[in-house]
Formats: sequence, structure tokens, C-alpha cells
Amino acid sequence: MKITISKENLLYGIQTVQKAISTKNTIPTLSGIKFKVENNRLYFTATDLEIGIECHVPIEAIEDGEIVLPARHLSELVRKLPDTKITINYLPEITGVEIKYDDSEVVLKGWPGDEFPLIPDFEGDYAFEINPNVLKNMIKQTIFATTSDDTRPIFTGALFEIENDHLKIITTDTHRLALRSGKVNVLNDQAINVIIPGKTLSEVNRITKDEEELIKINGNTKQICFETEDTKIISRLIDGKFPNYRQVIPNDPKTFLKIKTKSLQHTVERANLFSNEKDGTSVINLHIENGTLQVTSQSELGKVEEKISVLDEGEPMTIAFNAKYLLDVLKVMDTEDLDFNLTGSLSPAIVKPGNHDNFIYVILPIRVV
Amino acid sequence: MKITISKENLLYGIQTVQKAISTKNTIPTLSGIKFKVENNRLYFTATDLEIGIECHVPIEAIEDGEIVLPARHLSELVRKLPDTKITINYLPEITGVEIKYDDSEVVLKGWPGDEFPLIPDFEGDYAFEINPNVLKNMIKQTIFATTSDDTRPIFTGALFEIENDHLKIITTDTHRLALRSGKVNVLNDQAINVIIPGKTLSEVNRITKDEEELIKINGNTKQICFETEDTKIISRLIDGKFPNYRQVIPNDPKTFLKIKTKSLQHTVERANLFSNEKDGTSVINLHIENGTLQVTSQSELGKVEEKISVLDEGEPMTIAFNAKYLLDVLKVMDTEDLDFNLTGSLSPAIVKPGNHDNFIYVILPIRVV
Repeated sequence: MKITISKENLLYGIQTVQKAISTKNTIPTLSGIKFKVENNRLYFTATDLEIGIECHVPIEAIEDGEIVLPARHLSELVRKLPDTKITINYLPEITGVEIKYDDSEVVLKGWPGDEFPLIPDFEGDYAFEINPNVLKNMIKQTIFATTSDDTRPIFTGALFEIENDHLKIITTDTHRLALRSGKVNVLNDQAINVIIPGKTLSEVNRITKDEEELIKINGNTKQICFETEDTKIISRLIDGKFPNYRQVIPNDPKTFLKIKTKSLQHTVERANLFSNEKDGTSVINLHIENGTLQVTSQSELGKVEEKISVLDEGEPMTIAFNAKYLLDVLKVMDTEDLDFNLTGSLSPAIVKPGNHDNFIYVILPIRVV
Repeated sequence: MKITISKENLLYGIQTVQKAISTKNTIPTLSGIKFKVENNRLYFTATDLEIGIECHVPIEAIEDGEIVLPARHLSELVRKLPDTKITINYLPEITGVEIKYDDSEVVLKGWPGDEFPLIPDFEGDYAFEINPNVLKNMIKQTIFATTSDDTRPIFTGALFEIENDHLKIITTDTHRLALRSGKVNVLNDQAINVIIPGKTLSEVNRITKDEEELIKINGNTKQICFETEDTKIISRLIDGKFPNYRQVIPNDPKTFLKIKTKSLQHTVERANLFSNEKDGTSVINLHIENGTLQVTSQSELGKVEEKISVLDEGEPMTIAFNAKYLLDVLKVMDTEDLDFNLTGSLSPAIVKPGNHDNFIYVILPIRVV
């Protein structure tokens, strides 16, 4: 293997795939990135055996070949290289490479390319395409409602479901549920109902560029692949049955509010400062009546009492929430106004963007004495 | 105590004094900021009993008075307040305050003002004034060579010495020494030779604004005070005798180099990546001969070999340094070129800004076999 490459392309490839590497893995090769030269392209691959990321950039290849190089070290080095033409040359005697730039050179030891696990290519049962900006927004508005608690694996992931040319992404941690739908081009008619790990979606969100080119998604019951022009993310799916989210969404609200999103967010942020010293939970109390939403919260340190003007319809209502669960959705709500629909003091409430039906957030209230 | 104040002024006062608070203190009142209203000014004070910071802002005072409020909590709250007129009103029944803004209010509990320690006012034996930008630069170019090792207190601080209208700041951790001098206006003729804690200098650097107004510094053998128009930092001094730094500075160099500062910095940064796995120390080897500086470094992972063009005079030289100690000075060197003067492979070397005599850095080489 012998190539010349720009610093920019080298860094792009490393940074694209590097996040797939787990710091917890015990197999030395998996702390590396596999480099493979073929057809005047350099292919970068990294994996933690749950998720694999592959990416390629154009290069000038003098000789094809492959090697695995230590990721963290290489990444630090490349970031510090001068912005010049870089030559990488395989050194069989040490299973390493020589990296030349200007009048200088670095020698780096690695592992043989064939010791790296294969990322399997597979034929998907289902396939669809989606606009990258839509997908990024859908991930942003749902991923926060997953849990990191590994004892309930299905809640660490997001349900992908397709119906009438629309993809629905649904997440829940049993205290709240986020449901976001967006238009897709279905490429075959196979039904889709799979749970994708939250980590995979974070990576898809990170790697996806704000471009017009559609992202192609295809998979089977075990694996899924997100593919753009130069990058592939292949991930295992989470086994299990996602709860029936439809029955969680209340359908007979009694109280309807329309509120400025930012105004509510700032109020809840202040109320959130008065939290229980022991578990850090901040209970905020809401009272709605005659065009005013009153938000109160207290702790050993003091208390806050705020009033916001709202448009309200229906019954007066008193209800309490975990401030964090409200804040999470307010931070990702990208409309100026939002609809807040309440069914009862002890019933789930709905938060929705004003005048849009593509996003619904269901939040359970807290019972206060 | 009852006042109205802008969010900006309230936040400015809190953030100016807050860093004096230690998270390790065991006296509850010391986790707070003392607020005192007098002469239409609000005075903020915080201290960890080693360093005290006091600051004042103009307000509209309706009633004078004082109280201590929990710093962390108050600071988070004020940052999140709307940018509006804020009223603060003392509540004697709970030893707290009521903070009103728009239609909302926060109640916050505190401690009585008289439970807060007094920051002593004192008459200094010595006094001088200095341009704030000069002082900031002097601190930046010396503070990195202090140690955080509390077992040798004098090396955690910086020596202040005045001679011929020039302040010298000297720091050392015994492996390297930084000496920076700058012009001052001496206000009385008393000699100055005191050791100031590194933490105090960090705070002076943080709080000092890039303004024309001179900073007044005065003190005695126990305490020192840095004073600007609205802020005072009062600090204890470190007891002990600073080593004689003059005899550390070599005066008969054999090899003279002139190098581009950034070029050397980037080379040392790359060489620094190849460090000893066990203690993280990165030994870099320098060889100077015929207009070329060769920098090499190696570890279990690989090696680097770089060549930089330099202007050299005198004998060829081979010498090794701890990369970190070289990098530290390269990062704060603000001239395009620097002078690197070597006396021998086992003798201290000098790094100086090109064509300036106000900054000298002495670094001990590492003996390599």
C-alpha cells in the first residue's frame, strides 16, 4: 500500500469512522481503523461489532493494500499535521506505515489488515430513501426520550415504522414518549417495524451532512444500513417487541393551551433550579386558568413563582411534571408556538408544535399530595 | 435591603467574585456571596479565607442592608433571568430575599450578613501601578511554570520583585524557570520581594479587563491587594524564601538558534504524541548542525523524525528535553521568532523571544543514555 492524500481527506475519513470504536473493547485490533486502498480510493472502516462505519475518499494510489492503524494516536497526529500533501507507505517489516510530509516523517506500527473483522454486506428485505435534513430533525426530536438503562434494551432504541410513505420514529422511557413522522420514498413494499439502537442514530445524525442527496436505508430483521455517497453505517437491531404506543396517546383532552415555546422553556429552566436535594428531581406545578399559566417550584433553598400569558380553552387545570421531561422537549421544539393539551391532573399530557401534526410528545404527570 | 438592578450588573458582580469560593470549604456561609447595599452601590464579596474578591456596581437603592446568598444557585438563576429590571427585597422572616422580574418572583434563603468573615482593609508598606495588559501578559508567560504540588508551597506561587521601576515575576518548579519583567510606576520606595499564590494570579488575570486604567497593587509581608476601579482582590502571601534564580540562568551559551516559533511548536506537538506509555513523559531529541534542527521522538507505537530550517551559530549540539516543558513556553511566546541558546547537552538551555530581553525561560535537559 502506497498513496498520496490531502490532510483534509485523511482527517475526514478518520473522524467519520472513529466514533464506532468502543473504548471498552478488549481486542487490540478493534482500537484501530482499517485502511484499504482499491480503485484509487482509500476505504476507512471501524467497528465495535455492534455498529460499523465505512467511508471512502479519493486518493492517488501508487500501490493497493490494507493495514489497521491505532485510531486515537493516528487521529491526534493527523490533526496536528501541516496542511500539505501526505504520503503513506506500507512497511511490511514492522506491519506499519511511514507517513511523510514536508521534510519529515512519522513511523507508526499497526496490525495486519486481515485481522480486522469483516463488516458483512447484506441484501435488505426493505429499503427506503429520506432527505438527510428531515432525518436529522426526526432523530433530534426523538432520541432524547430513549433511556441509557441497559436492563431494558428496547427503550435504549427507537422504533422505525413505515405507513403510507411516512416513516415514524418512536421512542419512550416509560415516563414520556416521542413520536415524529416524516416523508420517505419507499423503494420496496416490505413492511418495516424495527428497533434501532440510540447510539446508531446518534452516529447517523453526526455523520449526515446537510445536503440534498437522499440517504438510502435498507435492512432485514437483524441489521440495518444507512448509506450516503461516501459513507455506510451498518448496525445490528435491538431484539424485542416495542410497546403499543398508540394506546398511550390520550385522545380526549380537557384543557388546551397555546404558548410561546421559548417563554415556557425559560420559565421551566428557572423553576428547574429548585430541585429536591436528594434525588435532583425538580417537580414543577402548573396551574392554568383564565389566560394565565402559573408555574411554581420549591426546595429547601427557596421557591419560584412565574406567570405566563397563554391562550387557553377548556377546563382550569392543576398538574405537576418532572421539569427535566418538559425541558427536554422544549429544547428540540422548533416552532415559535406550541400546543399543550391536558386530559387531567393524573393523565398523560400532550405537547405538540403549533399547527403541525408531525410531532407528538406524551408526558406523564407526577402525583403530588 | 431593597434595590433595583439590571441583570447585566447583577451577573457581572456575581461572576467577578464567585471564583474566590472554594468548593472544599466546610463553613456554609463561605459557599455564599455577601451582598451589601451602601451609597447607591451594591458590594459583592466572596472569599475562601486565602483570597477575597470584592466588587461593586451602581444600583438604585431603596433601602440599605446586607445578606449572604448561596452563590452557585444564585448564579445559575441570574444567568437564566430575562434581560429586564430586577428588584431584590430583603425578607427578614426567612433571612432571605425576594427577587422580582416581570410578573414573576423567586424567594431564596440565605444567611445573615454579619456571619460573613470581614475582608481586612490594610495599609500597604509598598505600592505600585501597572498597565493591565502588561500585567496579564506577564502572568500568562510565567504562571505555567509553577507547580500544583502543595508539599513545596513556594513553587506554587510567583516571586514579585521590583528593581529600577521594573517588576520581575519569577516562577519555577525546579525543572524550568520563567522570568518576565515589565515597567511599573513605583508609588513608594519600599523594596518588594514577595511570593504570590498561583491561584491569586489566575484570578487577577481573569478579572483584569483590557483597559487603560492602571491596576494599583499594594501590600505588606503578609497580604497583597490588586485594585481596579470597581474590583479588589486581596490575597495572603506564601511564606518562605524563593531560591536565587540569578545563578540558574546560564551565561555562556555555545550554540545559538533562531527559529520560527509556530514551526517549532507544531513539530514539538507531533513529537509529543510519541510518549512513554508508563509515565506519559515524552522525551524529544534535538540535534542542531548546519542550519538544520532535527527533532526525533519514539515510543512503542512508532517514531517521528522532523527537520526544521534554522539560523544557527556556534557548535553543533545534541540535547533532549521533556516535550511538555518546551511546549508550555512555545504556547505563550508571542513573537514570530525565538532565540534558543544551548550551553551543553547536560546544561540548562535558554528560550527567549526574538529581539526582546523582557522574557527568559530556562529549561533543564534530560539525560539520555
